[in-house]
Amino acid sequence: MLDPKVCQQLRSIVGDSSFRDDQEALITHSYDGTPMQQAVPDGVIYPSSTKEVSEIMKVLSAHRIPLISRGSGTNLCGGTVPNNGGVVMVMHRMNKILEVDLENLTAVVQPGIITKEFITHVESLGLFYPPDPSSMAISTIGGNIAECSGGLRGLKYGTTKDYVIGLEAVLPSGEILRTGGKLMKDVAGYDLTKLLVGSEGTLAVITEATLKLIPLPTYKKTMLALYTDLYGAARTVSKIIENRIIPATLEFLDNPTIRVVEDFARIGLPVDAEAILLIEQDGDEAAVERDIARIIEICKQENASEVKVANTQEEALQLLTARRSAFTALARIRPTTILEDATVPRSKIADMVLRINEIGLKYNVQICTFGHAGDGNLHPTVATDARDHEEIHRVEQAFEEIFDAAISLGGTITGEHGVGTVKAPFLEWKVGAAGIEVMKGIKLAFDPHNIMNPGKIFAKESRKRLVLHK
Amino acid sequence: MLDPKVCQQLRSIVGDSSFRDDQEALITHSYDGTPMQQAVPDGVIYPSSTKEVSEIMKVLSAHRIPLISRGSGTNLCGGTVPNNGGVVMVMHRMNKILEVDLENLTAVVQPGIITKEFITHVESLGLFYPPDPSSMAISTIGGNIAECSGGLRGLKYGTTKDYVIGLEAVLPSGEILRTGGKLMKDVAGYDLTKLLVGSEGTLAVITEATLKLIPLPTYKKTMLALYTDLYGAARTVSKIIENRIIPATLEFLDNPTIRVVEDFARIGLPVDAEAILLIEQDGDEAAVERDIARIIEICKQENASEVKVANTQEEALQLLTARRSAFTALARIRPTTILEDATVPRSKIADMVLRINEIGLKYNVQICTFGHAGDGNLHPTVATDARDHEEIHRVEQAFEEIFDAAISLGGTITGEHGVGTVKAPFLEWKVGAAGIEVMKGIKLAFDPHNIMNPGKIFAKESRKRLVLHK
Repeated sequence: MLDPKVCQQLRSIVGDSSFRDDQEALITHSYDGTPMQQAVPDGVIYPSSTKEVSEIMKVLSAHRIPLISRGSGTNLCGGTVPNNGGVVMVMHRMNKILEVDLENLTAVVQPGIITKEFITHVESLGLFYPPDPSSMAISTIGGNIAECSGGLRGLKYGTTKDYVIGLEAVLPSGEILRTGGKLMKDVAGYDLTKLLVGSEGTLAVITEATLKLIPLPTYKKTMLALYTDLYGAARTVSKIIENRIIPATLEFLDNPTIRVVEDFARIGLPVDAEAILLIEQDGDEAAVERDIARIIEICKQENASEVKVANTQEEALQLLTARRSAFTALARIRPTTILEDATVPRSKIADMVLRINEIGLKYNVQICTFGHAGDGNLHPTVATDARDHEEIHRVEQAFEEIFDAAISLGGTITGEHGVGTVKAPFLEWKVGAAGIEVMKGIKLAFDPHNIMNPGKIFAKESRKRLVLHK
Repeated sequence: MLDPKVCQQLRSIVGDSSFRDDQEALITHSYDGTPMQQAVPDGVIYPSSTKEVSEIMKVLSAHRIPLISRGSGTNLCGGTVPNNGGVVMVMHRMNKILEVDLENLTAVVQPGIITKEFITHVESLGLFYPPDPSSMAISTIGGNIAECSGGLRGLKYGTTKDYVIGLEAVLPSGEILRTGGKLMKDVAGYDLTKLLVGSEGTLAVITEATLKLIPLPTYKKTMLALYTDLYGAARTVSKIIENRIIPATLEFLDNPTIRVVEDFARIGLPVDAEAILLIEQDGDEAAVERDIARIIEICKQENASEVKVANTQEEALQLLTARRSAFTALARIRPTTILEDATVPRSKIADMVLRINEIGLKYNVQICTFGHAGDGNLHPTVATDARDHEEIHRVEQAFEEIFDAAISLGGTITGEHGVGTVKAPFLEWKVGAAGIEVMKGIKLAFDPHNIMNPGKIFAKESRKRLVLHK
């Protein structure tokens, strides 16, 4: 519960209707996209300007009240659950595209703009903002920046980090920090811009972003390849890259995912296929046609049982359905869907999928794996039931072993979802004790009183790594 | 002077011949590529492994002895001058390419490898490492990482930061930190990889780097356009980008530079031209030819007095000579050459060049400006004489005003050279008091006893910004 005086101070900054502490507001901001994570905040505030954010932070700092900034809360790591209570700051009112600069190919936006709206706007100008997290129809650019969102186009175009070139952010003290600018080169001191991207709201509140745009590719082609052998699909992925072709999209679905998707979408996928690759290339027409022709050859060399190339945009959309409906299809088979993002070097995808399947059998949990094969970012997904504590325990053990397998293969515990609370106990496996210590020091430099999204990234206790006991 | 016991400890780690404290070694490591910056270290050490670096750091930490890690010392910001004495660590013995992974398109290198050697090696495999600082024939990858080096290909391909995806680094304590990996996506905690890139040796010693490679473009075309009007050249730059063309290279020379270059190289440049643009495009042949045709059109629309397109590789090299010989040509006209890298949004290039010329007149100093027009990264260069204190004072005033002008136009004090000691007094102009405070906190988190390249980035006193007095 907040002190009534604090509530009054907050109301006087944003206006009565933009601060709420009624039950409805508190409950609806007690969770995000992550299953089985919930904690009720003490208040919810909706600022309309950087100045208001700054004033709010001064009040919260003075009273050491936790602040959880969020956009649409679509994250999958418990990143915006107010575990320690405090005030949830919803950025939706700060949702303007302030500028698209056609000379410098940059945009300046407020954090609350919906990613898809922004993408649609810049594409109408012949420009391209590539980061395309699956949540983009609902998620905000600010949330994408906080989590360093990836997406299907990461292999060729990179992730959110690669497109954020300047930030305005409010520090816990209320001070306003400005980093970078409309500059492709800037080495004035430590790179605070890239440090804030992916910092999960634990360092500062992002109030404005300068984004890099690139020319929109003029041509695109979509294809699908089916395999009866997992390694054939994996070798195809490696061979495409070895042939110096970087596709715009290079997605993977394993057999359990194919079954679930076909059951849901009835699009004629062969349920005995071991793997499907969804491949897109974009760019100049001649180059795209040449790349696609070469990719078809490689698929056939690797014994793809079928290769389908879309000849129209409608056909392309149909092929994309298999991948796009994966999460929806999975979400309907059991009450709880847990989607993870263990990531490995792309050459290790087949090894990782086989390890995941072994782990699923060992713990008797149903794991479907799909994801971004081109950049090794897999989404092992478990359909389960949060009410069944025994099963959930097995699911947790399985994921622990999956993270361990990813690390053993030279990978990481999270490719694009962030650490939040869900992966905090495993962070040390990836970054080591030295990495954790340095990160804690950075946190302290920004947030000496630990009021910025406390309880995220850093766990009270790190899990011991299974591999140590083997 | 180091305590003889410390010298003995250091010798026992690296062997007698790899630690030196004789006058020759000390004097030759008292300066780097920056004019008028010199300070003698107390010792020079040449480690051959990460383990040795770690052992060395433990000794230096215990005795609070400053450590200045360096490659070839080509930097232009005083970044590797041992201002506070201490031990200079030269990384040249750790110069191996440990791996080029053709499946994952990554390379693992030690920091002491010469950039050009590395580039040549990966190009022989049909791969591409784009960062190409002018110093690349001498500079090391480790030095490039420390300074986040740019180069001529930054506009289209980004800078060093965009290609470093994993690091091994030794902390002042001797602990070994490992970040990232062969991963295109990794959001496990704060991005320490990008933070270490450009940290100028003030946080840790980089002992190994995992680099991202991309397919080598198959085709390239080079052209030159001459202008009698500076704004015509500037409008050409903006219009190329507005036409959704991102050239591989888009370089600029102003009239004073053209005169100096022609006087030196005798390549037939018209000395009355106000500006030259050197433009290269690479990629797929059809796309390159189409882009170059469109660029020629734009140059003509903007009244280029002459447009030359290279039809052979020899002709391309000849056109490149104008830009490549700029620094050499300038370096021979007076005893001291000071080359800066004030950077502005690309749409502000003409405004910036005119401001630089006004400032040159005001302080009666000879400023030649050339650089990377495509990314707004200009190199205003002064030919002067370090022995003439009165003139040097005017040069310093002129640069101060140039930095101020860059900031006023939305730019930065350094695009690719780093802060070092030379730009430390101006850093606050760019990042503000809040930025400095946060950066100092980060420094403290890594280096609590301030032994890592002390005196760099952070100035004892920041300069007051001129604009405040206007």
